[in-house]
Amino acid sequence: MSDEPGAEGTRKFHRNTFDRIDPERRAMILRVAMAEFAAKGFSATGINELARKAGISIGSLYSYFASKEDLFLAVIDIGSETLGREISEIDPAAGFFASFESLLWKARAAADRYPELNQIYLDSTTQGMSSLAARLSNRLEAVTAELYRRMFEAGKASGEIRPDVDSGLAAFCLDNLVVMFQFAYSGDYYKDRMRIMTGLSDGEDIDDGRLVACIVDMARRSFGARP
Amino acid sequence: MSDEPGAEGTRKFHRNTFDRIDPERRAMILRVAMAEFAAKGFSATGINELARKAGISIGSLYSYFASKEDLFLAVIDIGSETLGREISEIDPAAGFFASFESLLWKARAAADRYPELNQIYLDSTTQGMSSLAARLSNRLEAVTAELYRRMFEAGKASGEIRPDVDSGLAAFCLDNLVVMFQFAYSGDYYKDRMRIMTGLSDGEDIDDGRLVACIVDMARRSFGARP
Repeated sequence: MSDEPGAEGTRKFHRNTFDRIDPERRAMILRVAMAEFAAKGFSATGINELARKAGISIGSLYSYFASKEDLFLAVIDIGSETLGREISEIDPAAGFFASFESLLWKARAAADRYPELNQIYLDSTTQGMSSLAARLSNRLEAVTAELYRRMFEAGKASGEIRPDVDSGLAAFCLDNLVVMFQFAYSGDYYKDRMRIMTGLSDGEDIDDGRLVACIVDMARRSFGARP
Repeated sequence: MSDEPGAEGTRKFHRNTFDRIDPERRAMILRVAMAEFAAKGFSATGINELARKAGISIGSLYSYFASKEDLFLAVIDIGSETLGREISEIDPAAGFFASFESLLWKARAAADRYPELNQIYLDSTTQGMSSLAARLSNRLEAVTAELYRRMFEAGKASGEIRPDVDSGLAAFCLDNLVVMFQFAYSGDYYKDRMRIMTGLSDGEDIDDGRLVACIVDMARRSFGARP
């Protein structure tokens, strides 16, 4: 397994010709596509300008991807793969709240390492994109849901989690905190919203550590067996 | 104050000519715009098709709104006004958790009453829309933040809320739960995500009451003085 974007995950959405070109060129095309889609959103991204910025002809681009849709899906798919790989590093055996805190810090790091992925992900969740998003079948959500399932199972078995907790509802609520936490570091709108909601004054920065501690404390008090 | 969309809130983004036309026609144009923007997103919405669906000429439309941007902002502004009015009905004197539960049920009702508002709101939060969203100056967030500020102040004064709670961080986290709860009833992507995360089987529906109770219970255990 390689960390190179495009090394895997695009198997469904590109044409075979894309596999045959130089890996660096492949990665570069995907990087340019990611940057364009992230900055402008899917609908406002022009395929001609994208090809120009990647330094390739529009003919070449269409020989690699059948449509703008397919290129977008390829980018999203790489993103799901990348974030899914990060998530799979979390071991529920470390304990429920340690795992949950890892997830938050991974979300925080992902916002810095892959800011564009988060912006594209958010764009893909809008209603105008629903027909496109349906083709992706919520792969990342399935990975996350499975992690929570294992975390709650282990947490109840070890006595860390109250036995009466509804794991499905609790997983949904906890992951909602993670998603909005991640959004808050990924886009201008959500950054502003975090500043307004937390009451930060101008020039003051959010203290990541205190925010993570607040969210983990919420999880512990809400679902922990020994609050 | 009227409940009619367009009766207020568009003061900044339309031209004076728009005030002079028949109120029903005004409301109809805004309704069509809302439906189009909600279904397709801002970028993919064509102003010609929008005018055609509203049964007006493109010339008339541009005599009411200087640009597609301004029409979109007018629609968002009405949405903020509508949701802001709902939020302002909540009285923190009713108690912190009663107020928080009201907010959740209002969010739930808003998803059914104004499904398109939520879809447009989500679209406006994407990075591609950031320059446009900046013109709105997070009006709705300011209203919500002020409600939480008053709720925490009253809750600490009455002893309902632990005195050591960081109201800003807590408000941010609680509102994150509200926003994602509302999204889950507003668009296909977030509906699917809720099903996956809560582990619903096909044909099974989410129990709104149990979900609201779970979120309120989280708030109470996390920040309440008497858990």
